[in-house]
Amino acid sequence: MNNIELLDLLHAYKQGNINDATIMKKIQNDSFDDIGFAKVDHSRANRQDFPEVIYCAGKTNQQIAEIFLNLFNHSQKNIIASRATKENYEAVLKLVPTALYDEAARIIYVQRDNTPVDDKRFILVLTAGTSDIPVAKEAGLTAQLMNNKVEYCFDVGVAGIHRLLARKDLIDKANVIIVAAGMEGALASVVGGLANKPVIAVPTSVGYGASFGGLSALLAMLNSCAAGVAVMNIDNGFGAGRLASMINHMR
Amino acid sequence: MNNIELLDLLHAYKQGNINDATIMKKIQNDSFDDIGFAKVDHSRANRQDFPEVIYCAGKTNQQIAEIFLNLFNHSQKNIIASRATKENYEAVLKLVPTALYDEAARIIYVQRDNTPVDDKRFILVLTAGTSDIPVAKEAGLTAQLMNNKVEYCFDVGVAGIHRLLARKDLIDKANVIIVAAGMEGALASVVGGLANKPVIAVPTSVGYGASFGGLSALLAMLNSCAAGVAVMNIDNGFGAGRLASMINHMR
Amino acid sequence: MNNIELLDLLHAYKQGNINDATIMKKIQNDSFDDIGFAKVDHSRANRQDFPEVIYCAGKTNQQIAEIFLNLFNHSQKNIIASRATKENYEAVLKLVPTALYDEAARIIYVQRDNTPVDDKRFILVLTAGTSDIPVAKEAGLTAQLMNNKVEYCFDVGVAGIHRLLARKDLIDKANVIIVAAGMEGALASVVGGLANKPVIAVPTSVGYGASFGGLSALLAMLNSCAAGVAVMNIDNGFGAGRLASMINHMR
Amino acid sequence: MNNIELLDLLHAYKQGNINDATIMKKIQNDSFDDIGFAKVDHSRANRQDFPEVIYCAGKTNQQIAEIFLNLFNHSQKNIIASRATKENYEAVLKLVPTALYDEAARIIYVQRDNTPVDDKRFILVLTAGTSDIPVAKEAGLTAQLMNNKVEYCFDVGVAGIHRLLARKDLIDKANVIIVAAGMEGALASVVGGLANKPVIAVPTSVGYGASFGGLSALLAMLNSCAAGVAVMNIDNGFGAGRLASMINHMR
Amino acid sequence: MNNIELLDLLHAYKQGNINDATIMKKIQNDSFDDIGFAKVDHSRANRQDFPEVIYCAGKTNQQIAEIFLNLFNHSQKNIIASRATKENYEAVLKLVPTALYDEAARIIYVQRDNTPVDDKRFILVLTAGTSDIPVAKEAGLTAQLMNNKVEYCFDVGVAGIHRLLARKDLIDKANVIIVAAGMEGALASVVGGLANKPVIAVPTSVGYGASFGGLSALLAMLNSCAAGVAVMNIDNGFGAGRLASMINHMR
Amino acid sequence: MNNIELLDLLHAYKQGNINDATIMKKIQNDSFDDIGFAKVDHSRANRQDFPEVIYCAGKTNQQIAEIFLNLFNHSQKNIIASRATKENYEAVLKLVPTALYDEAARIIYVQRDNTPVDDKRFILVLTAGTSDIPVAKEAGLTAQLMNNKVEYCFDVGVAGIHRLLARKDLIDKANVIIVAAGMEGALASVVGGLANKPVIAVPTSVGYGASFGGLSALLAMLNSCAAGVAVMNIDNGFGAGRLASMINHMR
Amino acid sequence: MNNIELLDLLHAYKQGNINDATIMKKIQNDSFDDIGFAKVDHSRANRQDFPEVIYCAGKTNQQIAEIFLNLFNHSQKNIIASRATKENYEAVLKLVPTALYDEAARIIYVQRDNTPVDDKRFILVLTAGTSDIPVAKEAGLTAQLMNNKVEYCFDVGVAGIHRLLARKDLIDKANVIIVAAGMEGALASVVGGLANKPVIAVPTSVGYGASFGGLSALLAMLNSCAAGVAVMNIDNGFGAGRLASMINHMR
Amino acid sequence: MNNIELLDLLHAYKQGNINDATIMKKIQNDSFDDIGFAKVDHSRANRQDFPEVIYCAGKTNQQIAEIFLNLFNHSQKNIIASRATKENYEAVLKLVPTALYDEAARIIYVQRDNTPVDDKRFILVLTAGTSDIPVAKEAGLTAQLMNNKVEYCFDVGVAGIHRLLARKDLIDKANVIIVAAGMEGALASVVGGLANKPVIAVPTSVGYGASFGGLSALLAMLNSCAAGVAVMNIDNGFGAGRLASMINHMR
Repeated sequence: MNNIELLDLLHAYKQGNINDATIMKKIQNDSFDDIGFAKVDHSRANRQDFPEVIYCAGKTNQQIAEIFLNLFNHSQKNIIASRATKENYEAVLKLVPTALYDEAARIIYVQRDNTPVDDKRFILVLTAGTSDIPVAKEAGLTAQLMNNKVEYCFDVGVAGIHRLLARKDLIDKANVIIVAAGMEGALASVVGGLANKPVIAVPTSVGYGASFGGLSALLAMLNSCAAGVAVMNIDNGFGAGRLASMINHMR
Repeated sequence: MNNIELLDLLHAYKQGNINDATIMKKIQNDSFDDIGFAKVDHSRANRQDFPEVIYCAGKTNQQIAEIFLNLFNHSQKNIIASRATKENYEAVLKLVPTALYDEAARIIYVQRDNTPVDDKRFILVLTAGTSDIPVAKEAGLTAQLMNNKVEYCFDVGVAGIHRLLARKDLIDKANVIIVAAGMEGALASVVGGLANKPVIAVPTSVGYGASFGGLSALLAMLNSCAAGVAVMNIDNGFGAGRLASMINHMR
Repeated sequence: MNNIELLDLLHAYKQGNINDATIMKKIQNDSFDDIGFAKVDHSRANRQDFPEVIYCAGKTNQQIAEIFLNLFNHSQKNIIASRATKENYEAVLKLVPTALYDEAARIIYVQRDNTPVDDKRFILVLTAGTSDIPVAKEAGLTAQLMNNKVEYCFDVGVAGIHRLLARKDLIDKANVIIVAAGMEGALASVVGGLANKPVIAVPTSVGYGASFGGLSALLAMLNSCAAGVAVMNIDNGFGAGRLASMINHMR
Repeated sequence: MNNIELLDLLHAYKQGNINDATIMKKIQNDSFDDIGFAKVDHSRANRQDFPEVIYCAGKTNQQIAEIFLNLFNHSQKNIIASRATKENYEAVLKLVPTALYDEAARIIYVQRDNTPVDDKRFILVLTAGTSDIPVAKEAGLTAQLMNNKVEYCFDVGVAGIHRLLARKDLIDKANVIIVAAGMEGALASVVGGLANKPVIAVPTSVGYGASFGGLSALLAMLNSCAAGVAVMNIDNGFGAGRLASMINHMR
Repeated sequence: MNNIELLDLLHAYKQGNINDATIMKKIQNDSFDDIGFAKVDHSRANRQDFPEVIYCAGKTNQQIAEIFLNLFNHSQKNIIASRATKENYEAVLKLVPTALYDEAARIIYVQRDNTPVDDKRFILVLTAGTSDIPVAKEAGLTAQLMNNKVEYCFDVGVAGIHRLLARKDLIDKANVIIVAAGMEGALASVVGGLANKPVIAVPTSVGYGASFGGLSALLAMLNSCAAGVAVMNIDNGFGAGRLASMINHMR
Repeated sequence: MNNIELLDLLHAYKQGNINDATIMKKIQNDSFDDIGFAKVDHSRANRQDFPEVIYCAGKTNQQIAEIFLNLFNHSQKNIIASRATKENYEAVLKLVPTALYDEAARIIYVQRDNTPVDDKRFILVLTAGTSDIPVAKEAGLTAQLMNNKVEYCFDVGVAGIHRLLARKDLIDKANVIIVAAGMEGALASVVGGLANKPVIAVPTSVGYGASFGGLSALLAMLNSCAAGVAVMNIDNGFGAGRLASMINHMR
Repeated sequence: MNNIELLDLLHAYKQGNINDATIMKKIQNDSFDDIGFAKVDHSRANRQDFPEVIYCAGKTNQQIAEIFLNLFNHSQKNIIASRATKENYEAVLKLVPTALYDEAARIIYVQRDNTPVDDKRFILVLTAGTSDIPVAKEAGLTAQLMNNKVEYCFDVGVAGIHRLLARKDLIDKANVIIVAAGMEGALASVVGGLANKPVIAVPTSVGYGASFGGLSALLAMLNSCAAGVAVMNIDNGFGAGRLASMINHMR
Repeated sequence: MNNIELLDLLHAYKQGNINDATIMKKIQNDSFDDIGFAKVDHSRANRQDFPEVIYCAGKTNQQIAEIFLNLFNHSQKNIIASRATKENYEAVLKLVPTALYDEAARIIYVQRDNTPVDDKRFILVLTAGTSDIPVAKEAGLTAQLMNNKVEYCFDVGVAGIHRLLARKDLIDKANVIIVAAGMEGALASVVGGLANKPVIAVPTSVGYGASFGGLSALLAMLNSCAAGVAVMNIDNGFGAGRLASMINHMR
């Protein structure tokens, strides 16, 4: 709330147009439900165009299901729970029978938002190898549930760069690009050099030995010689999809 | 024992008021029981207001149970065994039938100290997310067993900072604050900036990828721009509860 | 060049509409000048809307000046050389007398592009502290030279979060946000939670001890609990400005 | 501001007891001065009992001096600038002629607060070696400027543990203890085991080779087997002094 | 073989006192058995007073058993296989029925060397906690099998330093001291400061969080302020026992 | 394709000697099959003398089997899938009944290339210990499937350097040498100092504690004081075999 | 010396064909000069086709000059001293007036070997950027002094991959390729995927922030998805040149 | 003081044979001088056969000189100050005119102990290269000042292992061996495999790139496959000399 909005609000209150409860809520601003183990953030859909997303790791099945139900009941938007196991899903299903589960992407979701998707502006999700597909799917499904068209192009890593160059048309047409790559993560730099649009790099934990669980790809992407490559946490497909969606919706 | 106490002791001994065995024990100072695989420290209750706490990881069930029994028999205080599994508890239960177990906090304990708790001075335990609750519970139960009032406030991480600001009253009223947070651990800095009381930050291993098992939160908390934030080891809820108790009992 | 474009090109060639030299250049695609120690990339302005930017560190004064001149002569766009010292600038000045130097941002530049800037869409550059200003300036000047309106708001770190909340209006109005922060880097997460637009986080090397040259802020930003925060290399103001410009120009 | 305070404020406003400007400031809560490169936080003295402390590293002489002057003019409390060089001091001195400088502690300060100090409750600052004294002095002077009695005891590291045991009386009498130690940082654990009061451990960068700039002492202190030892950033004497002061003032 | 020995050998050969095979073996010096997957080193018993010790990790049961048998048949000394599992032992037992197994120390061994042990010179093995006992046992049993008297003293960590000081007599009487400690590893420095004899420090992986699998204790021990503390690899009880034995046998 | 080749191609096309499809394929250059989750690279056999090798980790059984079959059908060369489990093999076997599996080397392969092997030029694969054999086998089998003679010599680590010196003849006769060693990885340096031919060092993850999963051997090999030692990723036997084959085939 | 050679030697000695001194030297094998602070290795030229190379860092000017002179006097080959400063060179020049110095490559050398160079087999040295040239020069000059033809191609990093593809002809014609790249080091993987010949990757310390002194490029190169890429230590141009020379001389 | 000694002391006191001051000092045990910034430990000469050694880094010239003088006045032993600069020495020289300085070893010392040295038992100090000599000298001079015979053998690294084997006689005759090596530190393992006596390994910071300031040699030495190699901190020649002296004096 900026100065002018606050002044307006105070004047409305002083003139009796709004009551104590209303102004207090507005000043204290954003709303949430306190269900003990969680404060479910219902203002996030307004604040950020999309409801809070549940990060399942470290939560019990019961906690996940209750937060999911709470979000489901307070909004008409799509609902997402990331890093979810099959057991998490079964618990959610008991409370929200319309929930679906994508095993590759590890996402539980409800899809009910019918806002038409702009088919001319798509997000392209590239992977260096076949092993990077799960992270790519997490990114892609996240973006789709946030009302974006998504195209995939898998296994175009730099060990056979002609495979990437052959799909240069996709790079040229995309509005935003997500690159998921493990090992040395070089694909992000190559794509960053070819594209004149935002490139979101997601290092994956694919690799062994001195890949140190994705550290090697992470450092490579952070040090990309191609300007304008943004980097997410290792295996953070969700964050990449979320950011790509925000950029893709810019007008 | 300082100079004056030592001189008094020596004079008492010279005058025959205490015998060889007594003065030797006093000079050698603190007492302990040697039970082979452990030297159970019975002077700790005097030295530090609370008996030795058993760290269960790496000990056998039998060792834990025997040390627990030994502590139980030498003191009238509460007894705590941290990082305990259910199997550890079952072994203890055979020797100490009044022992209880808190699975979330992973603590085996005996509660028998009836010292009245000062209700006006409470320790506030905050978590950034739902996944940080187990560490918070380890801290909170530790502090309760050391005769402190504890209040919890879960899931007030900085991604929805209005949830924290809405509970500013708790921060204002608390005497000491414990913040358990994983991922980027930013909550400690925000609370440290809002509070004029000691803030004990406990990084948790919640997160993935470049969180490197809690390293990310640990470094963030150590580098807090809010002055006066103290940091514990990753997931060390026990240490946070112990320190908070010491501070809360200061008069 | 995609399939259709290539086929069109070949047919045009077969029909004699274009000659050997032209088709070879087109197939070999992008053009550059080879000046021995560097291959100056003249196709980048077409490919990526902006000419190659010179990274000065590790290059000799002579090399920098010659590359700068080469870029200056092949384009009518603005020219940028980053990580430049005063000595680098003096060498450039001899060959390109209209070059300017911003000492705080460490940028040598030529500003001659008169494309009108869209004043309604601005990039907001925030810093946690005063010490982060140089990195913020590198980001801001880069974005300005790429035809963006830039607003700055310095010293709004989380140790005094009311300073940030008081400028919530700027966050609400901005089109893209860059956050430069060292130490624990918490500002990125807090802003990421407040804003419904892309947030580009730049960890800075401000700090000491366990900040390990910016590692602490970097890890914190990568692990941000606020979805959609993109991270750049430590102190990489240039990359942040470049990415912000690309996003800000999306229509 | 909690619910009741906010309601009171609103009622006062509605009844015309306070005007627009006042309530807006109160709601927007804390006050600060925006001097361009910094937002000087004047509410911190109320919020945290002590004014904002200037962290000098990375700021220009001019910036430091202007922030110092701004703080000096808005408060009657003592003023502290940490990590200050002699050049920083000379710049401050021109604007604030009463400023003093402690070279060992690297602190510029103004001492004018005449609040009587409680001589019965002192903070004890221990060092493992002579080389750790500068960090100890930073901690001690910080605490003194915040109205605490401070005692020092240098060079009592564990290589000659009798030196520490001989001063056990100081440990017994102190209210809070700060331990500054480099190399293996073992002193913190030994003191933590002897004392029944809060121990604040400050790893120092004293050492070479595998001390890795203080990392070795930092890790050792975080892993202390003595419960209740809190850890600060490497060489962060200021933070230790600030926290010790908060604890020492608890009643 | 030094110059003189070689010359003697050559002269003996020239004079026909030794034949081709003998001199070739002597020049090629040390002997071993090549059993395909291993070259069992039979000269080690002469070269280093004790036969090759089998490191079991990463070897198959069959490989371990065959190497064990090979060593058993070529020597009358004790035989040791370290880091052995129960399954490894069962495989060895089929080929060498007199083999024994110590589960805590993870050692398979044959004890048949009746050389009398010097009871006046003993190796003292200290542990900081009960959880460090397995590493201590690996060290102790290794030293015993190499004909040394060994004394143990467990759980004398620095959190209760009186427990260590009470056994100062053991430290004074020992000939060599091994200290096994995890977490912050401070015990090594304290013992190193008290003792005027070689102290061999073995960091253990006991701990959690920022102990990083023993790294914390390792760095602490390497940076010991007590001169003359030697450090082994994390959990390397065997190496400590071997080195202690070599030192203890010096005359 | 260089300038002259491209010009020739274009002229042939202009003169109608080659058709649209052919020239497009040639310009787009290398060929591959897109089977959805993978772009199988069929030009690699031409480009690099050997077909694409399947990296199994992170791929599903179904994906591996289909890629294997695709490669099998498009080439008459040997086929390799590395890092394969028994389950991977069973899936491949259903589609390619002539596939074989080497459990130690973790390689699925088809051997059908009858090109005669040059027996005078062999690759020598050395290991420091018995535990390094699996990595050595991965290297050796890879090289054999690429038509090289391979000799093995296991367990010649530097703790008994006479075992290595006794096989100096093998080092002298080999054409290329691969050294697989864990722990301190010293064997690479010793061999590098003895040999006047390329030495390819493969650090293995054999070891414990401060070997940090092979990091210790990796760093040692990178810092080898013997000039001309090349290093592969930890446990990367495949890469070593591939490089050794390329070098061994040089004429 | 293998079995047969040794037997021949012994028989020759027994028959009086060689004397004591000769056989002792041969058995003790390789020769060197002991000049106190160094044992100059004169057998290396025979053993490895090139004399010992002096690593100047950490040696005094006097030591370098004396070792240089010693090598100069014992051989007719070229002499190399790497990592040399101008001061090192001046000291050498006093003892060896024909010594030359290449400042970019930091090499002092004497070139007097007139063996004709095979012009058809050249080593290609690529760099990602202009800043990587010094390392490339160290590699190239080393290889030239070891009698190889060397071609350079600078500034073909992946941010403008058309620059590399335009010089595909050089890659196709080269016999061995050295790639020097800092930052994310992606060039090594791209070249490794294009070339069917050995690729030696040299990470450089070019970069800042999370490049951590070359660690980022090093890890990327070790994890290259292109099989058969060998990696050298950071900035180790000398080692790359030495290895490339050995490979290039294979017949 | 053990039980019996304490009882004797108490009886003597009770019988009036010793007075209050004496028994208090004895119970409080070891003696030291408190000179403000240091507690000079005068009992160390009794407790550990050698006076406290001054670690100069981080101390002022004045502090070093005063501690040196204090030690000089309280003992007739040799005095050592390590890590000393020339400036440190000049300050010491003003107070202790007989002090000497060894620049290579960075040691200030007074040599006045005439205890005859046992010439038959010597400590051998080996270095891998010429650049490791300063660390070796620190170790050697330390041992000499503690009354040991020392032999040096420089530049016997594993790149030319015949240089080491040629001095096998020295290894055979030495009583204790110190190995100083940087880079990959392989020499320690090779010597550890050849010798049947304690080997003390000192990693040095000689190297560059991935040697990471000596980390590479440190890890290699900790992971030595040769049993019984003890490791010191990076560049800790002093500690190696101290430990070697203790072992060499064992009878």
